[in-house]
Amino acid sequence: MTESTMEPVRIGEPVRIGLLGCGRIGKLHAELISTRVAEVELTAVYDVYDPAAQGVAGDFGARVYGSASEVIAADDVDAVAICSSTDTHMDLLTEVAQAGKPAFVEKPLSLDLPEVDRALAEVESAGIQVQVGFNRRFDPAHRYVRDRVAAGDIGDVHLVRITSRDPAPPPIDYIKVSGGIFADMTIHDFDMARFVTDSEVTEVYATGAVRVDPAIGEAGDLDTAAITLTHANGAITQIDNSRQAAYGYDQRVEAFGSGGMVASHNPHTATASYMGDAGLQAPPLPHFFIERYIPSYLAEWETFASVVRGAPSPVTANDGRAPLVIGLAAWKSVRENRPVRTEEIVAEEIVTG
Amino acid sequence: MTESTMEPVRIGEPVRIGLLGCGRIGKLHAELISTRVAEVELTAVYDVYDPAAQGVAGDFGARVYGSASEVIAADDVDAVAICSSTDTHMDLLTEVAQAGKPAFVEKPLSLDLPEVDRALAEVESAGIQVQVGFNRRFDPAHRYVRDRVAAGDIGDVHLVRITSRDPAPPPIDYIKVSGGIFADMTIHDFDMARFVTDSEVTEVYATGAVRVDPAIGEAGDLDTAAITLTHANGAITQIDNSRQAAYGYDQRVEAFGSGGMVASHNPHTATASYMGDAGLQAPPLPHFFIERYIPSYLAEWETFASVVRGAPSPVTANDGRAPLVIGLAAWKSVRENRPVRTEEIVAEEIVTG
Amino acid sequence: MTESTMEPVRIGEPVRIGLLGCGRIGKLHAELISTRVAEVELTAVYDVYDPAAQGVAGDFGARVYGSASEVIAADDVDAVAICSSTDTHMDLLTEVAQAGKPAFVEKPLSLDLPEVDRALAEVESAGIQVQVGFNRRFDPAHRYVRDRVAAGDIGDVHLVRITSRDPAPPPIDYIKVSGGIFADMTIHDFDMARFVTDSEVTEVYATGAVRVDPAIGEAGDLDTAAITLTHANGAITQIDNSRQAAYGYDQRVEAFGSGGMVASHNPHTATASYMGDAGLQAPPLPHFFIERYIPSYLAEWETFASVVRGAPSPVTANDGRAPLVIGLAAWKSVRENRPVRTEEIVAEEIVTG
Amino acid sequence: MTESTMEPVRIGEPVRIGLLGCGRIGKLHAELISTRVAEVELTAVYDVYDPAAQGVAGDFGARVYGSASEVIAADDVDAVAICSSTDTHMDLLTEVAQAGKPAFVEKPLSLDLPEVDRALAEVESAGIQVQVGFNRRFDPAHRYVRDRVAAGDIGDVHLVRITSRDPAPPPIDYIKVSGGIFADMTIHDFDMARFVTDSEVTEVYATGAVRVDPAIGEAGDLDTAAITLTHANGAITQIDNSRQAAYGYDQRVEAFGSGGMVASHNPHTATASYMGDAGLQAPPLPHFFIERYIPSYLAEWETFASVVRGAPSPVTANDGRAPLVIGLAAWKSVRENRPVRTEEIVAEEIVTG
Repeated sequence: MTESTMEPVRIGEPVRIGLLGCGRIGKLHAELISTRVAEVELTAVYDVYDPAAQGVAGDFGARVYGSASEVIAADDVDAVAICSSTDTHMDLLTEVAQAGKPAFVEKPLSLDLPEVDRALAEVESAGIQVQVGFNRRFDPAHRYVRDRVAAGDIGDVHLVRITSRDPAPPPIDYIKVSGGIFADMTIHDFDMARFVTDSEVTEVYATGAVRVDPAIGEAGDLDTAAITLTHANGAITQIDNSRQAAYGYDQRVEAFGSGGMVASHNPHTATASYMGDAGLQAPPLPHFFIERYIPSYLAEWETFASVVRGAPSPVTANDGRAPLVIGLAAWKSVRENRPVRTEEIVAEEIVTG
Repeated sequence: MTESTMEPVRIGEPVRIGLLGCGRIGKLHAELISTRVAEVELTAVYDVYDPAAQGVAGDFGARVYGSASEVIAADDVDAVAICSSTDTHMDLLTEVAQAGKPAFVEKPLSLDLPEVDRALAEVESAGIQVQVGFNRRFDPAHRYVRDRVAAGDIGDVHLVRITSRDPAPPPIDYIKVSGGIFADMTIHDFDMARFVTDSEVTEVYATGAVRVDPAIGEAGDLDTAAITLTHANGAITQIDNSRQAAYGYDQRVEAFGSGGMVASHNPHTATASYMGDAGLQAPPLPHFFIERYIPSYLAEWETFASVVRGAPSPVTANDGRAPLVIGLAAWKSVRENRPVRTEEIVAEEIVTG
Repeated sequence: MTESTMEPVRIGEPVRIGLLGCGRIGKLHAELISTRVAEVELTAVYDVYDPAAQGVAGDFGARVYGSASEVIAADDVDAVAICSSTDTHMDLLTEVAQAGKPAFVEKPLSLDLPEVDRALAEVESAGIQVQVGFNRRFDPAHRYVRDRVAAGDIGDVHLVRITSRDPAPPPIDYIKVSGGIFADMTIHDFDMARFVTDSEVTEVYATGAVRVDPAIGEAGDLDTAAITLTHANGAITQIDNSRQAAYGYDQRVEAFGSGGMVASHNPHTATASYMGDAGLQAPPLPHFFIERYIPSYLAEWETFASVVRGAPSPVTANDGRAPLVIGLAAWKSVRENRPVRTEEIVAEEIVTG
Repeated sequence: MTESTMEPVRIGEPVRIGLLGCGRIGKLHAELISTRVAEVELTAVYDVYDPAAQGVAGDFGARVYGSASEVIAADDVDAVAICSSTDTHMDLLTEVAQAGKPAFVEKPLSLDLPEVDRALAEVESAGIQVQVGFNRRFDPAHRYVRDRVAAGDIGDVHLVRITSRDPAPPPIDYIKVSGGIFADMTIHDFDMARFVTDSEVTEVYATGAVRVDPAIGEAGDLDTAAITLTHANGAITQIDNSRQAAYGYDQRVEAFGSGGMVASHNPHTATASYMGDAGLQAPPLPHFFIERYIPSYLAEWETFASVVRGAPSPVTANDGRAPLVIGLAAWKSVRENRPVRTEEIVAEEIVTG
């Protein structure tokens, strides 16, 4: 651990965040940091596309820097949020580690496992705090599931079911560089499976199909998937995914064990109902990402503020690496049509969708 | 208590029921007694309209008698079910009491309070068991409400809410002789209020309207009503009624107290749901009386069998009388547009709708 | 309408709010205005207790003024939020009207009906926009109820049921000056009844009790109440209130009509459930006011910004007056134990709890 | 089709059923046939253990025969219900087919595929009607799922999820002869997958564990399982099973497609809830098989009566065979730890658990 990480964060002041990457997710984080979470504030931004950085800086009163390195080095930056494109995450994390500052990193860490391992070695050596952007861990409903499992309320975990379906697929251009459904979308579910069971995944069986859009298949990807995970503690997790649910965000987690069952359900846009002669109607699920997950993002940033101040990170760098390995095993399983053990994934592997 | 009531019912054999009245509700009870409840069997039937009696007897293998008195006296009748028209209930109950046999009596006991009091005096003197047909007390959901209140789980009862809406009004000819909405329909809710709070009603404020069918108003009745009851223990009950809910049987009870709240909800025709882009849909509520309340009727008859064998009646003759008084107070409240104390209802009162 | 109200609000800029009153509700509004709603910003504050004003100003970057008049007159105040103690509302509203600026006024407008009428005459004469702080109109679930009623989805409205129970009573000192339960708490429900039915209230029957805390009774107030409202369009509304629900905020609205039923339900703190051998468990309802109603407050301020820019107010000064009259009728009904017509409430009336 | 099957069933009379096998499921069917479904009646019974047959005959008024053949041949038997031990099903079905009478056969048809094929050839040649006892197809909630899928309401089916967990495992002695979890328990889910998707299964991946009782493992069986099915139409079904859910019968089906989602939920023992400061509670799920599935059994027998009268069977002999093949593939998948195509299962295969 370097000296610099030991410097006390200013007591009673918000943690000053430098933001790298002002695209869709970067802009969202900028707004939350600036206007919604008292414990953090946005002081510095950078984006390879300067107008994006200027826009965010103008909206939220931060200073634009000419390079990521300048943001990382800035005196008024206590911690760095890496929200740039996936292929830059590990280089930037390495640089933040070398600067001895805490880092928030968006998922997936990278599509290149050797690169991840090199960066994690730097993190380890620098002793910096890292929190990976698995925001769903902070969703109140999913967290209720995990907390009751952790409290022993369902006894030993036997089965976990995760449904994860988005309202619409991202643009094909995004899909092409995303690492495919397992690295881009199911990665949240792989993380959730580890989070809920508190147990590593040892084997992966994945199958899938192209049912939503043939262009997704032409890009070498799947849009519909069913995955079975075996955990070290004997639990079995089933995941199902679709890139397009006509009815909005559908993300549910259920854990079943020797003593009972606990499940998260989807919030509707309003807690109301109508009864007519055809039966009951209720308002739809959220179709907007932000509407669905704002509470989890707020809790994520509140937590990061405490991590910067010394609390243990609830989503470590290794928590970022493990789902990547599961994703690699899932692709191998699809290609070879067989269950694949995660230990078959060697450090040289790169996600190719 | 007469000798005859002390004769042991045949051990291990079903209780043999003589049925008086083979109309809609009589036929329903005949079927349940004969085919659904092992503890009772139908041996004798009578109806002023002989073909009705013949039909029931044919369907369920009972013997038709030429008069109610013959059914009451029959050797193979252990107990009598009085399901004839309301104006005959009290004369028949008197005769059953004089025969020393247990009686099941449909609601309302009568529309004529002095008549009720004379019959109840006979019941008292004969010491027979009486169970009044408030089947909703046996509904699993409403019973859950009462049981948790009785267990002290909500502490002292402060407020009770009862919603009672039927899918469609009965025929106008029936309405004309029914005693009006308070004696025919709300009477179940008056009973439920006493059942849940375990406390007598001291004051009644009722208001209502004709919103469903002007013919109901022309018959001197209401089809929409809102009633407020004050109980001896300080609880306040609000009831709302409609003769016509487009979406089926809507009967819910909610009790609120110092420690919490307990409520019954409507069962749907299937526990299923559909999600589309317009939101959630679920199957309708039952539109058929029998579909909604079969489990309560089955439990009602199982209970009556045990009452005949000596268990205390859970719905005594007095439990039949009390809601009638509340109904009389409700009509007085509507006519005089003021809260009416139940003690204002004197024994001479007759329901005139 | 005066000249000044016609001056265009600065296009594309947030509406600048001057806040009068920095107590509990004032502080909440200050935070929402400053940090959560982009369309408004806080520029000026005043409180009779200067440290309260200083605190809010410090937290949210506004300027403290030495008097309400200075805030109202300030150049950088486009509209005024009146969140001071109830007895000052009408004098301040009068002054804002005379300054020709739009006003947001907290509920209740006043406990003194003549005073309200004098102030409303000034509002009328000045032609200013007024929005009264009935935030529940902006709650997504209650709004769903009203919107489906307004769309004709339940046909003619026959019955409305409103449950409104708070987690805990306010301090006795507050209760003593609150105008009592009907002016302080039920006033939201009176407003909701008008909102959902779109029809004035013509008659009120109210009853109640002291069940939660004898000190509330000693202060001349009730803590438990049941109210029946008759509307001009024939609808009947039943309301029940308690100052103390052990399980959190319980606020539900249900409208029933010729074509169906629509209802709002309580949101839980998480959409999750647990199943064990004793049955199902789900997380509690919110116990914190803010947790329960934040979305409604946000929508309230977004709406006020558009009102300042010329949209019709969805909660006019008259919408603030009408529930006050219903509250006066409710107290009269309790005192005289009879239904009271709202036309019996004359302009001279003052709420005395 | 033989002459005898063309003989009209007695018009307007109940179908007379001869019952083979008076064990647990046979007794249940005897009671339902005799007392709950007007369209059928029980006239003849046989069991290898004569006292079992005598008991059922005594309870429900049927005649006991000395052999299955005598029941099959009896003049007052219109149709035969085969509810004996699994290893006798196909011989008896063959004999019923040769007698030209309709047959109801319990699941699983057999554990011996060649035997099934020989019997089905006889059925085909005789042209008799066969209905297999997959009662869950008649459950109102599961049927709602299938009906909305069949109506096109979710568009093309992409994913199906089936949860099937029983309250407690059967006795070990039963498990030893049951053909294992896939033939005994999951067979219902295999049937449901075909029923809901209306598409054959082409590939099976199964994994499982012994988590409930080591004795189940010692008997060569699993008590916890996760299965993935690929259908001919491209749909993917995930099934999870447990022999022991602490909270009762948990059987849910969910179908997801291009246009939406439809799901069946578990009925609770009462539609009621309690709210206290710890949150919501609701009554448990049924723990008794009969309580959970009575409505489906009633509908099953009503349907069989119409099948005997000539309606097409909704659960044909082939619908009985297909899940057996899937079960064989599931066992092969577990043994070989790979996905197995159903076409790999050749007619010689026998279930060995």
